[in-house]
Amino acid sequence: MTAFPARADTLITDARILTMDDGFTEIAGGALAIAGGKIAALGPASAAAGTEAAEVVDARGGLLLPGFVNTHCHAAMVLFRGLADDRPLDGFLKAVWAAEAAHVTPGTVRAGAVLGLAEMALGGVTHVVDMYFHPDATIAAARKVGVGLTSGPVFIGFDGIDHLPWPDRLRFAEEFVARHRGTDGVELMLMPHSAYTLDEAKLREVAAMSDRLGLPVHVHAAEAPSEMRLVAEQHGTTPMRILDACGILKPGALLAHAVHLDDAEIALLAERGAAVAHCPLSNAKLASGMARLKALRAAGVTLSLGTDGASSGNDLDMFKTMRQAAYLAILGSGEPDVLPARDIVAMATRGGAAAAGLGARKGVLAPGRDADLMLIDLSAPHLIPAYDPYSTLVYAAGREDVREVFARGRRIVAGGRLTAGIGDEIAEVRAVAARIAPGPARN
Amino acid sequence: MTAFPARADTLITDARILTMDDGFTEIAGGALAIAGGKIAALGPASAAAGTEAAEVVDARGGLLLPGFVNTHCHAAMVLFRGLADDRPLDGFLKAVWAAEAAHVTPGTVRAGAVLGLAEMALGGVTHVVDMYFHPDATIAAARKVGVGLTSGPVFIGFDGIDHLPWPDRLRFAEEFVARHRGTDGVELMLMPHSAYTLDEAKLREVAAMSDRLGLPVHVHAAEAPSEMRLVAEQHGTTPMRILDACGILKPGALLAHAVHLDDAEIALLAERGAAVAHCPLSNAKLASGMARLKALRAAGVTLSLGTDGASSGNDLDMFKTMRQAAYLAILGSGEPDVLPARDIVAMATRGGAAAAGLGARKGVLAPGRDADLMLIDLSAPHLIPAYDPYSTLVYAAGREDVREVFARGRRIVAGGRLTAGIGDEIAEVRAVAARIAPGPARN
Repeated sequence: MTAFPARADTLITDARILTMDDGFTEIAGGALAIAGGKIAALGPASAAAGTEAAEVVDARGGLLLPGFVNTHCHAAMVLFRGLADDRPLDGFLKAVWAAEAAHVTPGTVRAGAVLGLAEMALGGVTHVVDMYFHPDATIAAARKVGVGLTSGPVFIGFDGIDHLPWPDRLRFAEEFVARHRGTDGVELMLMPHSAYTLDEAKLREVAAMSDRLGLPVHVHAAEAPSEMRLVAEQHGTTPMRILDACGILKPGALLAHAVHLDDAEIALLAERGAAVAHCPLSNAKLASGMARLKALRAAGVTLSLGTDGASSGNDLDMFKTMRQAAYLAILGSGEPDVLPARDIVAMATRGGAAAAGLGARKGVLAPGRDADLMLIDLSAPHLIPAYDPYSTLVYAAGREDVREVFARGRRIVAGGRLTAGIGDEIAEVRAVAARIAPGPARN
Repeated sequence: MTAFPARADTLITDARILTMDDGFTEIAGGALAIAGGKIAALGPASAAAGTEAAEVVDARGGLLLPGFVNTHCHAAMVLFRGLADDRPLDGFLKAVWAAEAAHVTPGTVRAGAVLGLAEMALGGVTHVVDMYFHPDATIAAARKVGVGLTSGPVFIGFDGIDHLPWPDRLRFAEEFVARHRGTDGVELMLMPHSAYTLDEAKLREVAAMSDRLGLPVHVHAAEAPSEMRLVAEQHGTTPMRILDACGILKPGALLAHAVHLDDAEIALLAERGAAVAHCPLSNAKLASGMARLKALRAAGVTLSLGTDGASSGNDLDMFKTMRQAAYLAILGSGEPDVLPARDIVAMATRGGAAAAGLGARKGVLAPGRDADLMLIDLSAPHLIPAYDPYSTLVYAAGREDVREVFARGRRIVAGGRLTAGIGDEIAEVRAVAARIAPGPARN
């Protein structure tokens, strides 16, 4: 155990610490010190008696655990939250795409992303892998709210709502990466949209750029029956196989959804060292299907959880995502014990960090790691009693129980409230919404 | 439209009122007056200008709708919340039954029910159909918290944890009904547990008592594959068919779960005028299966929503129940538009009232109805923007957004906090939990 320092920026006391390390080590009545954005020490409260801190947080027996890593999101799409529910997938996509084409600009992306990231921060998320157009705007939003971000240029085979023809898109990607290497709090991936929006040549170009720049890829793959049909028509095979043939499927690759996989594809995923961002809320709402979690786990694939965007959610709630991951695993297997609660919490924390390539820095509470963590207050009636903390987190707790959130040592939620002021962005999102759907008074 | 009275107990102003009547009538910028526990009037704010009220609530543009009617619950089972997760169904039942046998008394039921009903009230529930041992204790709890209750004597074919042999159980039932006919805020049903815990003769005795006392029945039916096997062994048929043969399936009968139904049974349900309490959270968590909502709706069966008990939940959240109802209907049918959000809100409100036999008094906001209602605050980031209020309620809102709850005119939640003090009961539940599972410090 690392000794507690004499001075710290923040000292959290009287917490039930869930470190989420491989042994699921817990510390009852624990303390944790933050210094310079990192976890300086953690251990029994008595060990911290000599530590002086600028800020002391009495956890009052609450649960202290790593912040959630949301490994698949389109934060700015809160702009279209619930715009096109209760219609078949193609109707949903048409409505959302039309709204995107008319209303997505760097300015609206920034406002939407601030709102989306604020929602996530309030729900215990400290790092997000975000795929969307105008990624510089989302980076600006993340810096405002304080949430860590894995960002990157998006690749699609047509001009897209950012109006970039392919050569310009490649140039933008190179420039974006050059601009943001080393940007504080920002990690980089390349983000080819999917095998159904990119032809083989373009997929290979992205794979080559990924090799050259030393950056992993984040891609949608095998999400829905409609995608499987499209990819079969366009490529004569499955998403997983064409991504592999084009060099996209390699160590560090992060695949969003990965619902429709055969046994050979699961083995391939494991062999290639790719990770999965499981998105059970979106997969349920859009009738995409139930991912084969049991088989993926058995194969040793790194599993993580994503909320997807709010237009298919309709919120960005990692607690509901954990719970839905459990339900779909259980219903898909018929086995109530197929996915224990603590393994789901692991997927949402250290699994997410590993899937995002940040396993050495995030996802576990240990000295030297980024101080990305949340404190859960256990006093609400729906959390009493709490026989098992992991069961409490997955099956009873919600974002309303998140009291404090620190991201790289910065207190981004205090007493259940966001520390950043986002009134201007809320007003802007409401104004955009009024333009998208003029109608009766709304919030 | 009924004119607003000159005086009211409570006047709620500036609300977006969702009446949940058959036409889904909405009133933007609306006002609602409560007098004598009933809705006195509702309409545009201007119509209420002359009303003087002892208490005025400015809704600030929030959604005002009927309180949820939870049509299947075992409130006191919060005592065992999360006690036995992540194990197969038989292991789960064994652990819970052992804890029940050792720790269920009228006193612990009262404390647990206070906690469970408080949780529900905070989540917008104004009326609960509750099936559990020692129902007098749950009635006492409901009176304390202020939630309306449909209660009744439980019938099982063995002694049970209330230690009542069959003749005593029949006598208790008669006395309980005599004692509580007319008890304020309490409705009565007879509650035979299920076809797998009662033989044919006993089911017929309950049916005869139901006819004689003029009370409908509430019964578990066709919940899980294991039940289907048990009933086949014991009765040589299905739960629905044996319940019908014994006279249990009749107008007013409320069937909990009703997951495993063939086409003929769905037609039978509709013909008999029985209603269903759909419990999607419990059905998912215990791998019970996906109810055939589409076929049940098509047949015209009255559908409502239940949380089930917290030992199979693990919470009592009607928002999550609504959302899960959508997900299971979508996944079960492969159709994202199979169950529109507003129909789900209807299931949770007027559907619940109808299923509980209270359709004339509850479930819709209209003059003369019980003042059972909730106000949803729309200011949280996860609710912005809100293009459609029903989509917002089902796919984005949560109990954390419930600001005010009135049950029969009594304000049971104010500013997101319970108006009743329940500190003693929380301490008692924690003490029981410590006896059930002595171990590390818990909340």
